[in-house]
Amino acid sequence: MDDTAETDLLMLAGPVPVAPQVLRALSKPMINHRGPEFKKLLDESREKLRGVFKTENDVLILSGSGTCAMEAAVGNLGGDKKYVALENGKFGERLKVLTSLYGSSVAVVADWGTSIDTDRVKQALQTGADAVTLVHNETSTGMTNNVEEIGALCRKHDALLIMDGVSSIGGIEAPIDKWGVDIAFTGSQKCLGLPPGLSMISISDRAWEVIKTTQKRPYYADLIAHMKSAEKGQTPYTPTMPLFFALEEALKMLEAEGLSARIDRYSTFATSIRAAVKAMGLELFPQLGASSAYSNTVTAVNMPPGIDFFTLKKEMKQRGIIIAGGQERLKDQIFRIGNMGNLSKGDILQAIEKLELVLLENGVVNEMGAGTLAADCVLEGL
Amino acid sequence: MDDTAETDLLMLAGPVPVAPQVLRALSKPMINHRGPEFKKLLDESREKLRGVFKTENDVLILSGSGTCAMEAAVGNLGGDKKYVALENGKFGERLKVLTSLYGSSVAVVADWGTSIDTDRVKQALQTGADAVTLVHNETSTGMTNNVEEIGALCRKHDALLIMDGVSSIGGIEAPIDKWGVDIAFTGSQKCLGLPPGLSMISISDRAWEVIKTTQKRPYYADLIAHMKSAEKGQTPYTPTMPLFFALEEALKMLEAEGLSARIDRYSTFATSIRAAVKAMGLELFPQLGASSAYSNTVTAVNMPPGIDFFTLKKEMKQRGIIIAGGQERLKDQIFRIGNMGNLSKGDILQAIEKLELVLLENGVVNEMGAGTLAADCVLEGL
Repeated sequence: MDDTAETDLLMLAGPVPVAPQVLRALSKPMINHRGPEFKKLLDESREKLRGVFKTENDVLILSGSGTCAMEAAVGNLGGDKKYVALENGKFGERLKVLTSLYGSSVAVVADWGTSIDTDRVKQALQTGADAVTLVHNETSTGMTNNVEEIGALCRKHDALLIMDGVSSIGGIEAPIDKWGVDIAFTGSQKCLGLPPGLSMISISDRAWEVIKTTQKRPYYADLIAHMKSAEKGQTPYTPTMPLFFALEEALKMLEAEGLSARIDRYSTFATSIRAAVKAMGLELFPQLGASSAYSNTVTAVNMPPGIDFFTLKKEMKQRGIIIAGGQERLKDQIFRIGNMGNLSKGDILQAIEKLELVLLENGVVNEMGAGTLAADCVLEGL
Repeated sequence: MDDTAETDLLMLAGPVPVAPQVLRALSKPMINHRGPEFKKLLDESREKLRGVFKTENDVLILSGSGTCAMEAAVGNLGGDKKYVALENGKFGERLKVLTSLYGSSVAVVADWGTSIDTDRVKQALQTGADAVTLVHNETSTGMTNNVEEIGALCRKHDALLIMDGVSSIGGIEAPIDKWGVDIAFTGSQKCLGLPPGLSMISISDRAWEVIKTTQKRPYYADLIAHMKSAEKGQTPYTPTMPLFFALEEALKMLEAEGLSARIDRYSTFATSIRAAVKAMGLELFPQLGASSAYSNTVTAVNMPPGIDFFTLKKEMKQRGIIIAGGQERLKDQIFRIGNMGNLSKGDILQAIEKLELVLLENGVVNEMGAGTLAADCVLEGL
C-alpha cells in the first residue's frame, strides 16, 4: 500500500495539510457566481489579500495554480519586452522559460541552491531591461533570495520587478510595496493553507501602465479582463467556486492567528527542522551567499551516504510522514521537508523523530535523540 | 436578502446543483499529487472521460474553467493557422476572438440564436482553412448546432474541427469520433454535475500532428506538457485536487446512471420546460433553421411583455429558484433556465410552477396551471 492515507502527515513543499474547517468550506453548495454573495466573498478576499501581500496594489484571484499566475505576470506585459531572468532553482528557470516565450530574455543563472550574484544583475540591467523576474523563496532548493536588494536595483534602472512569492507570501516576510515589487503572485496550496486551485497576483500602477498598452495578452489569464470583472465583484470566466469558499475560511484563520504570528510559527518550525538536521550530522543543501538565506517554509537536505531517497521516502511513508524529493536535476540528490499549512509543533517533532529513526535503522546515524532534542529545544524556545 | 441560500434551486446554465456525495468528496484531505493514489485517480478519470466523449482520442484534464480549455484548443495549434470561426452566440464569439488572437480568422456569423448557414461555411472553407471552430450547444442562446454536418465539411476540406462541448458533453449526444471532432472540450460545472474548476479536452491524432510542430504554445495550457505528464499519471503543474476528488465521485454517479439515461433525463427535463413555456404563451428565443435544434440543457425564452428580467429574477429568487438572464447583447431580452446537474423531476416541476405563479402575479398569464400541467405531462411521459 503506497497511497497517502488520510491520517498521513503531509510535509511536502505543497500541497500542504488543510485545516478541517477549510476542507469543510469546500463542500458548500454552489451559488450564482454573478450574484451578490459571490461579489461579497470576492471583494472581501481581495481586500484581505492586500493585507497579506502588504500592498496597496490591486490583487486579483485566478482560477489556476501558481504557474497560471506566473504566465499571467509575464504574458500580460506584451511580446516586445526585454527581461533579465534570475535563476537559482527550478522556479527561476520556469520564469526564464516564460520570459523567452513571451519576450526576449537575458538570464543571470547561478547553480541551483547558490546565491545570485548581484553584480551580474547590475551588469545585465545596464544593457537595458523592461523587467526582472525573481523567485523569492525557491521551493525547489529551500533557499530565500534577497528581493529588497533586487527591488532597489530595478528602481534605479527603471525596470519592473516580477516576484514569484508562491512559497513565501503569507508565510515569510514579503512586504511587496516596501520592496517595490510590481507584480507578485502566490498559490493557494502553500502558506495560505488551502488546497491547490487558486493563485493570487498583485499589480502595481507602474505595471498596469505597461499592461494597458499591450496588444496581445493571454486570454484566460488576461489581467485587464480580470480587473474589469473584479471591479464588478466578478471573475471574467467561471471561478473555481469551492476554492473561493475555502479561501474565505483560510483568510479568517490567518486573521485569527495574525500574519506575523504565522510567519513566526513557520520560522520556528523551519529553524527546528534545520537544527535537527544539523544535529544528526546531515547537510543543508543551500550554499548561502550574500543575497540568500535558508527558507522558512521548505528545508532541503543533501541525501546522506548510506540511504537513497526512494528508501527514505518509503520508510517515512510507512511511518505516516510524506516528504518530498529533489526535482529534475536535484532528483535523488536532496530530500525536502515542507512546514506550511495546518501543522503543529507536535507534527514537526513527530516528523523529525521518525526521520531520525529511519536514519538510525539505515545506519546513517548511530544513536537516537540528538535530532529530536535539537528540534524540540527550538520548538520550546529553550 | 439577495444571496443564494443553501436551499435555493440553482437552475442557471452553470454552475449547477452538485450532488451531496460529490460535494463531500471535495473535502477529502490533500494527498501527494506526484504519488500513486493521484495517478490512479487521474488514469481512471481520463479513461472514463473517453467513454463520456465517445472517443478513442487522448483526454486531458486541465485545472481551469472551460475558457482555459478553449484557449488551449486554439493556442496549441500555433500562431500561423487560418481559422473559419462559426458564431451564433456568445461562446462562438469567444472562439472567434481566440482564433484572431492566435492566428488569422474568417468568421461566419449568424445572428445569435439563429442557424449557421452551411453554404457560407462551405464558401469559407474553399478559401483554405486549417481549422474550424464551432460551439455544439450555445449556452448563451439555448440552441444546439449540427456538428455532424460541419464535421463532414471539415473532412472534405482537410480542416481540423474544434468543438466547444462545454454545455453538451455528458448531457447531449455528442459522439466526438463519429462526428470527426479533432479537439473537443467541456467544463466540470455543466453536464458532469461538478463544481466549476476543471475542464476536459480531447485531442485527435490529426490535431496532435499539428500541435507537435508548433514552436510557441501557451504555457499553463500547453497540451504537450499535459500529455507528457499524463503519461506518468501526473499533471505538469499542481492540480486542483479537490475537484479531482469530486470528479471521481461524479464519474461514478454518471456510470451508475448511464450516459444515455443521463442524456434522456436532460432531454426530458428540457422538453418539459419547453412544453410549459409554450403552454404559458411564451416564446422560445432560438429561431431554428436547417442546422440547429433546441438545446436539451439550457432553455432560452424571450422576455414576455409585462415583466422585466430584474423583477422575474427577484421574484423567482424569493421563491427559492435561481434563473439566469441573457448575456451581453441579450441582456434583458431573454431569460434562461438550465436543467443540468443534480436535479429531479420534482425540481423541474417546482421551478415551472413558481415561474407560472410569478407570471400570473405580474399579469403575464391569466390563470395558473397550463404550464405546470404541460411540464408534468412530459415528465410523466403522458
